[in-house]
Amino acid sequence: MTESGRRGDSVYLRGWDDYEHHTLKLTASKVAGMGHVAYRATSPEALERRAAIIEKTGHGKGWTDGDLGHGRTYAFNTPDGHNMEIYYETEWYKAPPELKPSLKNQAMRFPARGANVRRLDHLNLLASDVGELRRFLGEVVGMRETEQIILDNGQEAGAWMTVTNKTYDIAFTADHYGAHGRFHHITYAVDSKEEVLRAADIFLENGVYIETGPHKHAVQQTFFLYVYEPGGNRVEVANAGARLVLAPDWKPITWTEEERKKGQAWGLKTIESFHTHGTPPV
Amino acid sequence: MTESGRRGDSVYLRGWDDYEHHTLKLTASKVAGMGHVAYRATSPEALERRAAIIEKTGHGKGWTDGDLGHGRTYAFNTPDGHNMEIYYETEWYKAPPELKPSLKNQAMRFPARGANVRRLDHLNLLASDVGELRRFLGEVVGMRETEQIILDNGQEAGAWMTVTNKTYDIAFTADHYGAHGRFHHITYAVDSKEEVLRAADIFLENGVYIETGPHKHAVQQTFFLYVYEPGGNRVEVANAGARLVLAPDWKPITWTEEERKKGQAWGLKTIESFHTHGTPPV
Amino acid sequence: MTESGRRGDSVYLRGWDDYEHHTLKLTASKVAGMGHVAYRATSPEALERRAAIIEKTGHGKGWTDGDLGHGRTYAFNTPDGHNMEIYYETEWYKAPPELKPSLKNQAMRFPARGANVRRLDHLNLLASDVGELRRFLGEVVGMRETEQIILDNGQEAGAWMTVTNKTYDIAFTADHYGAHGRFHHITYAVDSKEEVLRAADIFLENGVYIETGPHKHAVQQTFFLYVYEPGGNRVEVANAGARLVLAPDWKPITWTEEERKKGQAWGLKTIESFHTHGTPPV
Amino acid sequence: MTESGRRGDSVYLRGWDDYEHHTLKLTASKVAGMGHVAYRATSPEALERRAAIIEKTGHGKGWTDGDLGHGRTYAFNTPDGHNMEIYYETEWYKAPPELKPSLKNQAMRFPARGANVRRLDHLNLLASDVGELRRFLGEVVGMRETEQIILDNGQEAGAWMTVTNKTYDIAFTADHYGAHGRFHHITYAVDSKEEVLRAADIFLENGVYIETGPHKHAVQQTFFLYVYEPGGNRVEVANAGARLVLAPDWKPITWTEEERKKGQAWGLKTIESFHTHGTPPV
Repeated sequence: MTESGRRGDSVYLRGWDDYEHHTLKLTASKVAGMGHVAYRATSPEALERRAAIIEKTGHGKGWTDGDLGHGRTYAFNTPDGHNMEIYYETEWYKAPPELKPSLKNQAMRFPARGANVRRLDHLNLLASDVGELRRFLGEVVGMRETEQIILDNGQEAGAWMTVTNKTYDIAFTADHYGAHGRFHHITYAVDSKEEVLRAADIFLENGVYIETGPHKHAVQQTFFLYVYEPGGNRVEVANAGARLVLAPDWKPITWTEEERKKGQAWGLKTIESFHTHGTPPV
Repeated sequence: MTESGRRGDSVYLRGWDDYEHHTLKLTASKVAGMGHVAYRATSPEALERRAAIIEKTGHGKGWTDGDLGHGRTYAFNTPDGHNMEIYYETEWYKAPPELKPSLKNQAMRFPARGANVRRLDHLNLLASDVGELRRFLGEVVGMRETEQIILDNGQEAGAWMTVTNKTYDIAFTADHYGAHGRFHHITYAVDSKEEVLRAADIFLENGVYIETGPHKHAVQQTFFLYVYEPGGNRVEVANAGARLVLAPDWKPITWTEEERKKGQAWGLKTIESFHTHGTPPV
Repeated sequence: MTESGRRGDSVYLRGWDDYEHHTLKLTASKVAGMGHVAYRATSPEALERRAAIIEKTGHGKGWTDGDLGHGRTYAFNTPDGHNMEIYYETEWYKAPPELKPSLKNQAMRFPARGANVRRLDHLNLLASDVGELRRFLGEVVGMRETEQIILDNGQEAGAWMTVTNKTYDIAFTADHYGAHGRFHHITYAVDSKEEVLRAADIFLENGVYIETGPHKHAVQQTFFLYVYEPGGNRVEVANAGARLVLAPDWKPITWTEEERKKGQAWGLKTIESFHTHGTPPV
Repeated sequence: MTESGRRGDSVYLRGWDDYEHHTLKLTASKVAGMGHVAYRATSPEALERRAAIIEKTGHGKGWTDGDLGHGRTYAFNTPDGHNMEIYYETEWYKAPPELKPSLKNQAMRFPARGANVRRLDHLNLLASDVGELRRFLGEVVGMRETEQIILDNGQEAGAWMTVTNKTYDIAFTADHYGAHGRFHHITYAVDSKEEVLRAADIFLENGVYIETGPHKHAVQQTFFLYVYEPGGNRVEVANAGARLVLAPDWKPITWTEEERKKGQAWGLKTIESFHTHGTPPV
């Protein structure tokens, strides 16, 4: 990733084709975890409309002045306690001369070093109550669900939701410890499965802990690789191939307990820590 | 591709993850070319609204009864004379037992043969007046432009437009002969650049004429391969990597004459026939 | 793979760029396992020389008349009891008209179906005494060792040996049950890691049991995928990238017990059955 | 590439898995071109034997003291005037602590920057008389030919020769200007076709002139990309897939004038400068 700014004890980072000033803000902290996640509304009017809808639910926290790279935000909590914001005004990234790309339709020069993550893809959370969070993000925030896990007892154990043609922009699964508001991982997209494999070699050489992968998810079928950054947060590098949700009336795919026991697409068993490790630690 | 139906002298085909009954209808004809292209509206209401808007422009041709795999359509002509339709009701593809996929979140079994095209990606047309077609598809049909070519004399020579997060769902360039309503190519997406290279080997072995590629486009940066099907229509197999247009306020990228003279991304000169070959022949 | 002949209850198979008539002979049998493995000598003289050397060790079984696709062979047993043969005369594969390749420097048409294995790569065996087999193949058969596993107690637990610039043409590890002469797996090479991933999708769709992978080996660094054929023999599809042993004086790489406990290159734990499953079953 | 030493006005470079101290020596010069190429003999005895054979032909220039990274060499000229050397004693590369690889079976840490060339692959020359050079390298130096171009008039126009299982270690084509002893290009191998495509993006972003490619050669079928280094020498980055020459009795593939007119494997026309540009300039 490339640094695009600093303020106080925070550093702002981006993939090489993220169009905004940054997509990741790292702030020095004693404990790992997600400070907040912010989604961009599709227009100033959509922002106002959505803030009003959230306000009515009692989860709203009010307007902020914004941050380096984007304008004012409307802040709120999910029912599970995750800090979220929505905003519209954003600073489009302008590459400095030494990072100007050869092709004008990409944000920044293609880097010749590191794992080459192209753009922010999605975020995964843990929730004490998956169904409640799914209803909130669906009915209040306006997302639609594309895939889900339903246990034999009828309980929702996982949900994948989108506001674009990407198959998901956010996902969340049941917190193993029943804790509230925890973070599971953030995912950056690379251009190919080969780039995921290459990232694995780079992580290996640089002593970055590889938790699991590369392999192909059964749910959503992305080709994945999970590592922990030095602070303990899980980070995913992934490629979705050409898979998109293009149907306006897509009906959520439901995975049963038995189906999920098969592990990942080609048979890799889901690693235990994937179910238990979240940040902050409980 | 896989056949999903036949009616009269037409055969209906699909990529392995197209969610609809078919995405290509081939009809026996003495001359190559595009019969019509149909886009799906996002809802029954959206269909009615759009039909009414088109009706007012005088380009409408009225409602049809639909076809194998989809319900009634509203038919119209572009100002350039291409036959288009919009529809909403569609038949979701149901794989027969022998084509049932192992993973329930894909439409059909991943095929172990052929070029493995995953899904319809986009369509390219030729137009006698690029600007007029761009305005029609933008203002009347409701598409937005993501990239364009503007000649030194101010004339529009190419436009790429989308209704999704894909960087384009349709593109069109100036017809070399000034002809009306011609077809340039249809594109199916594969999951990786490697699949494009593999398709090249398969085309080579099967005597399919390779016009140009594999290479990377400068405009839109897709990794492409162009062939002619036996009837003479151009077909593209392509992969876009993880590139999407996620900004709701994306401003069209403009390419100048000089920039386009550089050829494709890595320097391949655009082949002459790419500018001249369209169907039907003039 | 492609069938290139039948005789009795045997069928002869080949990868699309194997230069010989076949590289795999399947014979109907009640129990899975390896009938024999045959290596080709570099010249008629080398064959005679090598046969004489083996003869002297008392492991020789004498000359055979050959088989479909190759001439007479000198048969012998390894000290562990595996049936081996060496031969020189071979029938170069001649593609029938419908399988003639477009490029004359490949053996057969690039297939548009299946896992596209290019050529036989290597064979893995189990041995009751790894050191003894390593010495036999090194000193008698004339192979050189490129990598090995040495336990803390000094015992050899695995050996990789070559007679070419491939990093290994044969490998063998200690038989978990101390059994003699067993088979571990046969490996076919594909052209890229992407082809290995694609093979995984094809195996998944066709109900072929995937034992482990795709992942990258620590030893020899090949990108691997292991499946069981319906009869129970393990088969590997692999890609070695551009890795070759080009040094004439390559010194074997030694892996310790502790190093091997780390699992595969990116951390995948070696699956239990990989240590225990061999054919015939004990 | 990584620097492994300097001496005088020369810098020594290597791919990340080259086993020797260096595989490229760059020396400051007013004119581009090849100073010399050196091949390693398989043993001290083989070196002596070969030197004696060359000596007898009158092309020998005698022994040198060696250079940084390798011992004494026997120097000679090809009949066409290229400077060549053979040697045996070499310094195995020892990675400094910061470049130590995680996997002990590779020479150096896998780099997270640049085009990631793994190892030297081969060298291409231009020759005034292809047949004469082919006979010299075959009969005197001990190489064997794997593919060749024979013109309709019977003249040899290109030859590919090997001393390993790689399909070629050297190649040469007729010098367009009839000049003597010129250099065409040097090739480094990467692990996959994807890495070649990635190299193209890196070259593009860094203003390196891309002459032709990426595409697949018809001859030898390597996936190639040609660039000029700032001094004007042509450099190739290539991947051969799993293709090797494993037959001890491989018979050279002959390409005719007509076949070569078809261009490269998927139809790319061979660029004019590929036939004319060599170093030093005529």
